[in-house]
Amino acid sequence: MSITAFILGRPLANQEQAGRKVGLPTGIPTIGLGAFGSPAYGPEAALLALAPLGVAGLGVFAVVQGAVVVLLLLLWSTFRRAVAAFPDSGGAYTVARTTLGRGGGLLAAAVLLLDYVLNVAVGISAGIAALVSAVPTLAPYRLTLCLAVLGGLTLVNLRGTLDAGRLFVGPTLAFLACLAVVIAAGATVVLTGGGEPGAAASAPSPAATAVPWTTVLVAYAVACSGLTGIEAVGNSVDTFRSPAVRMARRALAVVVLVLAVVLAALAWLVPALGLTAVPQADPAYRSLLSQLAVVAVGEGALYYISMALLLCVLVLSAHTSFVGLPGFVRLVAADGWLPRPFAVLGRRLVLTVGVLVLAGTAGALLIAFDGVTDRLVPLFAAAALTVFLLVQAGMVVHGLRVARRLGTRRWRVRGAAWSRIAIDGVGGLATTVALAVTLVAWFTAGVWIVLVLVPLLIGLFVAVRRYYAGLDRALRDPGPLDAAALAPPIVLVATEDRSRLVDRALAFALAISPDVWAVHLVALEGPGSEEKARLLRDTWADDVEAPARAAGRRPPRLVTVSAPYRQVWVPLLDLVDQLAAEHPDRTIAVLTPELVKQHWWQYPLHTLRARRMRAGLLRHGGSRLVVISVPWYREEPERDEPRPGGVAAQTARPSQAAISS
Amino acid sequence: MSITAFILGRPLANQEQAGRKVGLPTGIPTIGLGAFGSPAYGPEAALLALAPLGVAGLGVFAVVQGAVVVLLLLLWSTFRRAVAAFPDSGGAYTVARTTLGRGGGLLAAAVLLLDYVLNVAVGISAGIAALVSAVPTLAPYRLTLCLAVLGGLTLVNLRGTLDAGRLFVGPTLAFLACLAVVIAAGATVVLTGGGEPGAAASAPSPAATAVPWTTVLVAYAVACSGLTGIEAVGNSVDTFRSPAVRMARRALAVVVLVLAVVLAALAWLVPALGLTAVPQADPAYRSLLSQLAVVAVGEGALYYISMALLLCVLVLSAHTSFVGLPGFVRLVAADGWLPRPFAVLGRRLVLTVGVLVLAGTAGALLIAFDGVTDRLVPLFAAAALTVFLLVQAGMVVHGLRVARRLGTRRWRVRGAAWSRIAIDGVGGLATTVALAVTLVAWFTAGVWIVLVLVPLLIGLFVAVRRYYAGLDRALRDPGPLDAAALAPPIVLVATEDRSRLVDRALAFALAISPDVWAVHLVALEGPGSEEKARLLRDTWADDVEAPARAAGRRPPRLVTVSAPYRQVWVPLLDLVDQLAAEHPDRTIAVLTPELVKQHWWQYPLHTLRARRMRAGLLRHGGSRLVVISVPWYREEPERDEPRPGGVAAQTARPSQAAISS
Repeated sequence: MSITAFILGRPLANQEQAGRKVGLPTGIPTIGLGAFGSPAYGPEAALLALAPLGVAGLGVFAVVQGAVVVLLLLLWSTFRRAVAAFPDSGGAYTVARTTLGRGGGLLAAAVLLLDYVLNVAVGISAGIAALVSAVPTLAPYRLTLCLAVLGGLTLVNLRGTLDAGRLFVGPTLAFLACLAVVIAAGATVVLTGGGEPGAAASAPSPAATAVPWTTVLVAYAVACSGLTGIEAVGNSVDTFRSPAVRMARRALAVVVLVLAVVLAALAWLVPALGLTAVPQADPAYRSLLSQLAVVAVGEGALYYISMALLLCVLVLSAHTSFVGLPGFVRLVAADGWLPRPFAVLGRRLVLTVGVLVLAGTAGALLIAFDGVTDRLVPLFAAAALTVFLLVQAGMVVHGLRVARRLGTRRWRVRGAAWSRIAIDGVGGLATTVALAVTLVAWFTAGVWIVLVLVPLLIGLFVAVRRYYAGLDRALRDPGPLDAAALAPPIVLVATEDRSRLVDRALAFALAISPDVWAVHLVALEGPGSEEKARLLRDTWADDVEAPARAAGRRPPRLVTVSAPYRQVWVPLLDLVDQLAAEHPDRTIAVLTPELVKQHWWQYPLHTLRARRMRAGLLRHGGSRLVVISVPWYREEPERDEPRPGGVAAQTARPSQAAISS
Repeated sequence: MSITAFILGRPLANQEQAGRKVGLPTGIPTIGLGAFGSPAYGPEAALLALAPLGVAGLGVFAVVQGAVVVLLLLLWSTFRRAVAAFPDSGGAYTVARTTLGRGGGLLAAAVLLLDYVLNVAVGISAGIAALVSAVPTLAPYRLTLCLAVLGGLTLVNLRGTLDAGRLFVGPTLAFLACLAVVIAAGATVVLTGGGEPGAAASAPSPAATAVPWTTVLVAYAVACSGLTGIEAVGNSVDTFRSPAVRMARRALAVVVLVLAVVLAALAWLVPALGLTAVPQADPAYRSLLSQLAVVAVGEGALYYISMALLLCVLVLSAHTSFVGLPGFVRLVAADGWLPRPFAVLGRRLVLTVGVLVLAGTAGALLIAFDGVTDRLVPLFAAAALTVFLLVQAGMVVHGLRVARRLGTRRWRVRGAAWSRIAIDGVGGLATTVALAVTLVAWFTAGVWIVLVLVPLLIGLFVAVRRYYAGLDRALRDPGPLDAAALAPPIVLVATEDRSRLVDRALAFALAISPDVWAVHLVALEGPGSEEKARLLRDTWADDVEAPARAAGRRPPRLVTVSAPYRQVWVPLLDLVDQLAAEHPDRTIAVLTPELVKQHWWQYPLHTLRARRMRAGLLRHGGSRLVVISVPWYREEPERDEPRPGGVAAQTARPSQAAISS
């Protein structure tokens, strides 16, 4: 137990939940990391898409990046209002469910699930890929490193968001500081006329005349993958401590502004410094951010520190999903679309099942792709853009409802409402363009997987909900208690032979019913078992029947039943059937004496027959049957021994006062 | 269920056990394979040990092999009398336990366990090594091939010895036929003056004068590893159908004679044909049997068929352990030295746990040695020789007891008895020499592992026996049933909210006791749970108390208990403590309503709270507590649905007549 406590920390009580929320300093690393990693791949991919245009591409790059920054600012406006309008967490899912109906909610749930899982796989694999390209000797351990990082993140998150956020504050702040220095230094180089624009100018420019629109659209769509991660803030309002909405909006502002500055800086510096994107397969490959850093600060200590921190942030960006997904699936589970275990809080008030399912699916993805999941970036972008679009569409619907409610209020109020609708609408159009291009351009490259998985997930949600609804109908509204037929049960006691274990069971059986049958089960034939049964029969009258009669009870009958196939519950169940048919008004209780294993090493020493019998009886018994376990302890369990839950659980035991009748 | 039935076959009833024994045609492959594989490594190792002697070595080889054949014949005599004297199976273990006391029995048990496990690892890895040296492209899959063979053997053995034996008849007979052809052809070559004795004669002979004794002793000891496997027949008498002893003795005769012929043939043909052993590391390596086959029948189809069959026999020789070990550990478990699950018969009347433990340990050994376990041959030889020695020593003791009982009978009878003692004694001395040389010569090469493991295993046996003895003392001799204090229990019903599930539980509780408490457990605080508790309290009087009173029962009290650490059984147990202290004469029964999962896919859909609660209560409850499970079924389980056990189990359901009271 103490190992668990050391790794996961002491168990937390329900009342401690409020104290487990994060403020801004831990909140921004906790949910912002996903967004901070995105500029590492979005702009580079756009520049690469524009490479056929030569020098003209650099100009187009600036325009495309500008458009992405504008979309980012539009999304900011949308998300900050969404956070205020739907503060009870859930983000995109809640927005879509409330405004776009059941279908919208289900689509949002499915897409968000994919988004979270892809974020983990892409973040970890991109970070490790960068690390491996820097330190090629690590190449054979790529998958192992990915899984180690995933395992570490999982453990940290099983301790709780708060602990994880605290761990990440340092690296995140250092990364942001380095980024600021690099950008400032780059700007200085440009302003002082440095740089090497010749490099790009000397490159052949095959199409300096007309710029093909499809190329620009594709560049815009891939550039939008630099925005992935900002949806996380809107989805994790309940991670923040009170006032949660204000905290979340501030965190969103910081994340968006940092991202906007970085993207805008790249839009300006990349063409001004004449940087070019090289395909990753090229041996001379160097990432765009790496090129910028070299030009800006030289290949010194600061360069290496920046690159190390970037790797850190990429890898840790997976953490955003661990914060977001469990809370989100809990909401979906509360609505009945996902299994209930997703809503169970673990020892650290963490939604354990959600964390483990996320780690499992992301781990499976990493293993399936052998740690190289860069090709999943288009899928990830498709999922994130769909989330954006759903929030934007939802906020348009929400805005229209608000506008209708405003009725004939003052012009200025209505104007503000309509301008917000316009922002969401225009942003939605920009997102739609990026999403459509992504779906078409990368359809065969893997985006079809998203289009297959989303309907499957929605089908799963519907099936789960239908199951619970059916169960509910069968269970609910029992009406007043039916206390008409309360005859005592017929009790069957599984009697291997006479022992203190069996005697306790017989005594309990006599205490609850006048009809007790001691069933001696013969699993194996042979001289040994014959002998045992005979001995039991011979001593029964004196040792059991006589004392029972003396106590004024009807003595237990001894019957012998043989189990030719050695599964002892099968003939027992046949006996139950027989008795149930003879006594249609009685419940049949099967009583199994059970030697309780108090140490782990006792398990291999016993055949666990009582346990298997109970499982078989419960599984196949039918509603006329009740199964009773009478425990027997070699050593009486100590009542002051620390129970699972540790010392803290001890002190918080409910006192007399806690039992309110 | 039908997949299990397809792979493992239909379940077998106890009465079918007699029909599952083997006769001679299946019995010889079943238990003889271990011995048939040994000539592949014993003689070759001896020849290699004699290599420094040059041509003189060939002469010494013939002498050493002759000594091994003599030891084999002595062992035959000993084993055939051991089989008759101790027919109730167990072989070496029974002999040692009966004649050499508890210490001898424990030593035999430990050594036999190692012998069986090593036989599996050595057999499979030797066979696959030969296969890989023949088909080098398979080299990267060595471990996978080993584990695949192990898995296949395990599956076949879970079906039962009979099925495995039948599968192996063909390859074994074909192998023996090929061996006969090769030996006959080799003999013809020698007798017609063929062969190439020049090859060995031309080799340098550095020490044609004196032959060093240590070299000869080492050669003798390694040559004895060609005898491993013959102990299996004596250990598996109960595998044969009646008359088991006669069957086992015939099988032993066949195995010994085949082995003696092969070893004697090698002793004659190898020097006559001038064959030499080459170290395995040598690129020109060719096994001794392979060289003999080339000389005898040329490198044609027959050669390749013989080699393929040899691989087959080596690999399948592991099967001998699967036949022997489970029955042997069952005996040891019946004596209380090993855990009881080793004595449980599975669906095919197979000792499942023994088979799986053997497969697991052998698999672990194969993985640990990466499929290359040839270095384990000395360990294997040490274990097998110890088994021989224990049987020989045991038979000497047995013979002395018989001789004492004979007293002053006729001279001829006493002479026969003493001559048998002499055979066992002389054989024992020969074994002792081989064993001592093995222990000394290969001590640092790994035999020390045997010397470490044997005491550890004996310690384990003693600890297991002590545990069972303690348990027995605590459980047995309860005396007459104590029926003095049979007050009805106080019943606590875990009440999540009102539902048909809970109502069934409440009704049962009212049927068995007048003191029923409905315990509403609040695991999580919050507005939702407050509301639920209030609703329950509000409707309790009308929907539960009133009907109970109307039926003339004391109505159940409703109490609310909160679980701040979300482990619902902890506060429940505190309530049990409290009630137990207030009512020292009463048993406390906790009744948990349980929704029975009838399909595998239901498990992830439920939180399994009832199950965890039951486990927690049983583990920590103490002997005042009884746990009652009231099942609730969404669909009543169909009584005519085939239960685990399949069709055959159905037809064999115990009828009224089977229940004898």
